[in-house]
Amino acid sequence: MSFLTPYQRKHKVTVIGSGNWGTAIAKIVAENTASNPAIFEKDVQMWVFEEKVEVPKTSPQYNPSSPLCQGPQKLTEIINKTHENVKYLPGINLPTNLHANPSLEDSVKDSTILVFNLPHQFIIKTCEQIKGKILPYARGISCIKGVDVREDGISLFSETIGKILGIYCGALSGANIASEVAQEKWSESSIAYDPPHLDSKAPSPNRSPSSSTLDVVHFTHKDVSGQLSQVKLQALPSEYPPIDHAVLKTLFHRPYFHISVVSDVAGVSLGGALKNVVAIAAGWVEGMGWGDNAKAAVMRVGLLEMVKFGEMFFGATINTRTFTEESAGVADLITSCSGGRNFRCAKLSIERKQPIGKVEETELNGQKLQGTLTALEVNKFLKNQGVEEEYPLLTAVYRILEGTMSVEDIPSYIER
Amino acid sequence: MSFLTPYQRKHKVTVIGSGNWGTAIAKIVAENTASNPAIFEKDVQMWVFEEKVEVPKTSPQYNPSSPLCQGPQKLTEIINKTHENVKYLPGINLPTNLHANPSLEDSVKDSTILVFNLPHQFIIKTCEQIKGKILPYARGISCIKGVDVREDGISLFSETIGKILGIYCGALSGANIASEVAQEKWSESSIAYDPPHLDSKAPSPNRSPSSSTLDVVHFTHKDVSGQLSQVKLQALPSEYPPIDHAVLKTLFHRPYFHISVVSDVAGVSLGGALKNVVAIAAGWVEGMGWGDNAKAAVMRVGLLEMVKFGEMFFGATINTRTFTEESAGVADLITSCSGGRNFRCAKLSIERKQPIGKVEETELNGQKLQGTLTALEVNKFLKNQGVEEEYPLLTAVYRILEGTMSVEDIPSYIER
Repeated sequence: MSFLTPYQRKHKVTVIGSGNWGTAIAKIVAENTASNPAIFEKDVQMWVFEEKVEVPKTSPQYNPSSPLCQGPQKLTEIINKTHENVKYLPGINLPTNLHANPSLEDSVKDSTILVFNLPHQFIIKTCEQIKGKILPYARGISCIKGVDVREDGISLFSETIGKILGIYCGALSGANIASEVAQEKWSESSIAYDPPHLDSKAPSPNRSPSSSTLDVVHFTHKDVSGQLSQVKLQALPSEYPPIDHAVLKTLFHRPYFHISVVSDVAGVSLGGALKNVVAIAAGWVEGMGWGDNAKAAVMRVGLLEMVKFGEMFFGATINTRTFTEESAGVADLITSCSGGRNFRCAKLSIERKQPIGKVEETELNGQKLQGTLTALEVNKFLKNQGVEEEYPLLTAVYRILEGTMSVEDIPSYIER
Repeated sequence: MSFLTPYQRKHKVTVIGSGNWGTAIAKIVAENTASNPAIFEKDVQMWVFEEKVEVPKTSPQYNPSSPLCQGPQKLTEIINKTHENVKYLPGINLPTNLHANPSLEDSVKDSTILVFNLPHQFIIKTCEQIKGKILPYARGISCIKGVDVREDGISLFSETIGKILGIYCGALSGANIASEVAQEKWSESSIAYDPPHLDSKAPSPNRSPSSSTLDVVHFTHKDVSGQLSQVKLQALPSEYPPIDHAVLKTLFHRPYFHISVVSDVAGVSLGGALKNVVAIAAGWVEGMGWGDNAKAAVMRVGLLEMVKFGEMFFGATINTRTFTEESAGVADLITSCSGGRNFRCAKLSIERKQPIGKVEETELNGQKLQGTLTALEVNKFLKNQGVEEEYPLLTAVYRILEGTMSVEDIPSYIER
């Protein structure tokens, strides 16, 4: 991508988080900043929660005579010297312009684009820590899958981030298994980004940042529970290339990672949550040996309930085609129902005649299944809204998990 | 389903065709006529192309002392005596009210509902044979998968049947593997039925069939190539229950076979053709070991091209939600990309480094792959319309089959 009008400043990009998905996304971003020097500063900061780790003997980076391999070392030092995240993304070479930074505040300093890629329980704490220490006109992209469903409402992680920091934040989600993306196996993803109008007007490079009346807008948002919140949003100075769909595509798109940029943040985020519930049902059906027809039926009904959920609770702010046509929708659903962990544990629970919680304990190394938790939260929310019966598949999954319905009842319960 | 107003006459149903899918559908239909005596005559005729077969020694019907097992016998006699189609659907008990009939003309006599379930090369010949010998106000349902794509246009098999016979014909299609349906494994299917208005008005049981001006309409149809055709359609006499969505659901829906009745005949039919081309691409991707993300990406792009194809060539007569929400659309696509024969042969062709035609020869026992043929026909049609480049996945499959592109080129070629 080339810009005919040169801008005085370039975007500095920071990735906040360095698990397997955080590191895989940081790799992509750093590859793209290096190849688009007109738009981005080459160096990308990646905030790493500092811990001491040993370089595993199986790692290509292991060298018994190296000081790095004499007992536990700081993870940031290992990453910066070996260009490999030996703990969370072993075996993958990272670009040399990607810098691991143990200081959260230092890593976000002067960055115009903040990419969030953390487990969701750390979002609020992390944002509180950098509040007021970032550029007031920075923009965010949340790569955190799913939404936060509570009994009285649903909030998008991107909005939680945006509200705390006083910035606009979009979302990235798709049919992406981190290890496959890191190995540069081809996949697709969706970015949703729809800031208020002050960013969407093509700014003139010669316009002074203070000469426009559009430099600050009050961005009002009404969430599902009806709560209003307002963010005072500051315009990006015109010295920078505008942060629009084209720039985001340039930052995230790779020959092996195809990006489509859309405007539907709620749809892109919601798909990533609800598909895990559907994947549990698909795993049960496969475990029962009911065949491909039945599995496809469960996936189809699940997709319909995702569409209906979006229409009912997000109304006109959602585009139902996000579910049926985007990577964050139907493709992510297909991948999750093919071999994701919710699918696998549900299938095993039938084959072993064990509760899914038991399978979770023995198979997931202490990690938790997202789908069972989401099924519970979504059910509480639907009950509270008085529409539990209108979502027979989501409700069936909840009831089977609770033990008040059996897998054999699914076909008759979801019959239309 | 119950009717408060009793009608003087009941519907007689005939299934034309007795392969594995024809027999499975005939089983369903006969089960439903038996349990809905207010609407249907109990006995269902199934036309069987007569041939002499031996009852296999492995069949539960085999009894060395029975006259039926002394050498080759007529298939219709075996079916009517043993209630099993030992040749095309072995091991499945058929309802005793299903009657195999070797005479095509006799089987359709006096029937108001004709269910077509034949290989498509026999449609025209079979229809020509019964033309003028059926009730003029009969209605048809075509269970024949796919559409007839030619360089200059696309015709629906249901329309071909309707035009030859001068009747209205709808379509049934879904994620249905005949053997699984026959075993009563749960699945779903879609029926599309949208006759001109003379059938949609609820008729009065007391109205004489000749007292209405709506008894005959000229049903004009314009196909994709712009050709107009007109069918003189005769109204169903009011002695019969109207043939509407509710009656069709009663005839085809079972606890193990869930039916949704819609109006979009073109969408339901088109999905069944194009998904085979997508399944070939999915098989290649799986054969390459590119992982679930990549396979989901190909399926997503395929689904989008199905939607686009429908919108471009059928315009307002198609409902794009048929592709993304119906069993005949997204669910059939998922099933076909999970283990259908097009998928399997394409996967094997990569693993064995053989052309797909060679795999087809060794794996399919002389049967032909539908997907390769459809890919070729669809490409000719798209070229003729000047829009080949707008369908990169369909075009890539064609070019790879022709040897002018390689599977490795798919990601970059379909990049958006």
